[in-house]
Amino acid sequence: MKLLRYGPVGSEKPGCLDAQGKLRDLSGKLPDITAQTLDPAQLKSLQAIDVASLPLVENPGRIGTPYSGIGKFICIGLNYSDHAAETGAEVPKEPILFNKWSVPTGPNDPVVIPKGSLKTDWEVELGVVIGSKARYVSLDEALKHVAGYCVVNDVSEREYQIERGGTWDKGKGCDTFGPVGPWLVTADEVADPQNLAMWLEVNGKRFQDGSTKTMIFDVAYLVHYISQFTTLYPGDLISTGTPPGVGLGQKPPLYLKAGDVMRLGIEGLGEQEQKVHAWDASLLD
Amino acid sequence: MKLLRYGPVGSEKPGCLDAQGKLRDLSGKLPDITAQTLDPAQLKSLQAIDVASLPLVENPGRIGTPYSGIGKFICIGLNYSDHAAETGAEVPKEPILFNKWSVPTGPNDPVVIPKGSLKTDWEVELGVVIGSKARYVSLDEALKHVAGYCVVNDVSEREYQIERGGTWDKGKGCDTFGPVGPWLVTADEVADPQNLAMWLEVNGKRFQDGSTKTMIFDVAYLVHYISQFTTLYPGDLISTGTPPGVGLGQKPPLYLKAGDVMRLGIEGLGEQEQKVHAWDASLLD
Repeated sequence: MKLLRYGPVGSEKPGCLDAQGKLRDLSGKLPDITAQTLDPAQLKSLQAIDVASLPLVENPGRIGTPYSGIGKFICIGLNYSDHAAETGAEVPKEPILFNKWSVPTGPNDPVVIPKGSLKTDWEVELGVVIGSKARYVSLDEALKHVAGYCVVNDVSEREYQIERGGTWDKGKGCDTFGPVGPWLVTADEVADPQNLAMWLEVNGKRFQDGSTKTMIFDVAYLVHYISQFTTLYPGDLISTGTPPGVGLGQKPPLYLKAGDVMRLGIEGLGEQEQKVHAWDASLLD
Repeated sequence: MKLLRYGPVGSEKPGCLDAQGKLRDLSGKLPDITAQTLDPAQLKSLQAIDVASLPLVENPGRIGTPYSGIGKFICIGLNYSDHAAETGAEVPKEPILFNKWSVPTGPNDPVVIPKGSLKTDWEVELGVVIGSKARYVSLDEALKHVAGYCVVNDVSEREYQIERGGTWDKGKGCDTFGPVGPWLVTADEVADPQNLAMWLEVNGKRFQDGSTKTMIFDVAYLVHYISQFTTLYPGDLISTGTPPGVGLGQKPPLYLKAGDVMRLGIEGLGEQEQKVHAWDASLLD
């Protein structure tokens, strides 16, 4: 099932795609798609709905995050060996975990460059959505806790992340740095999360062109691993790292500027498109 | 005003201390103390209540976190010069920010050692509670965004934090690692947040005995600084770093074991007491 939410920020309606890829209105069936909706039993009852009988939505307007109540937004650093190489970093022995403080935004919402920032960068990533509590889960059981997958753009400010000292969190949590969606694709529709093509273009030029098959630590391992350090709850979102081709890895490095347009996508999970804006408080809440 | 919440996890009632330090029931005035309660206008109307007229609570039982809906739980690393020295780290040029993934717990709730952990450690810290949105705030305006203060024990696992690679988040977000409270003391009652004695004892032996006056970056600077990287919202909590005397700094290092009791407090903000338990899933949600 491909779940999504559409409408203005804060009053999104729930929807899903039908077999023809058309948007259907789910609001007669549930008030919203929330972290609780991701529970395996709830998802199962949702999947029993005859989607073709739901009202068609002709003009959805804005697309929001695919569920509300996104909890912890945990990211994995340097999880593609080629990306580690392009940034000059060693391949990590264990997953590198960091946190994204950004309020998650819709897949096509504006990306705003922080005041004075010169090094805002892109990262297409596979997002893993937790559906049930995961605490010290074994590798074998890990994927049972995954409700589905989505596209994430882990927008990053490299000066804040690397040069300003301390941990990476400083450069990852700026406002508008967490576009999520368009869809939450339930796990049953993703035959192999380790074999998904992924790409990102800036102004029509392809910079990232990779596949989840070159991840160092795969989805099952990441869920298992993180659950040894903190409990994962329904609605938590893991962004699993990016393949090569980020701005920091260009020679010379290339960063986003006002007016740029990012397009990115993952096979079967849909596409995002964000326009990049100079600092403008009116674009934020 | 000293605000608190008492009762079983998930069904806490709001309360406050009267002039004699006795607990009064606020549930006739508001259903809960939430992030929204921290708004300056709401806090002002709360402070207009005649506390002496509220019902006395004789046996509050468990004390919860002093407000519900704690948002981002942002911590500052190495923010006391003596503590930086004891851990062998340089004094940072800019604040080090990291994130705590733990679900915040009450001030006297159990602390559970993670499975197999050998290096669980303590850190008494001044918690700063945000009352209104803070985005690119100036140093002069920063303290206007602070609703109040509380005690935090930034419980830490040093192997996960330091030896397991990547950022510190890995060793800071374990379950039960975020006791907060007992009280949220509104900012008007804290004459100088940079002159508060703070201490922590394990099994009656005093290990930390410091003051917020030796902070490297003070509260106003931290609110200003963080607001340059991510917007602070009502309910966000900043834990501002710890003075010397943590287990990692002992010679040889000394860590928590099952049966230990931590007591800690900050002048005017109350005390916490946690019993340390070996791994026991029944103590968690």
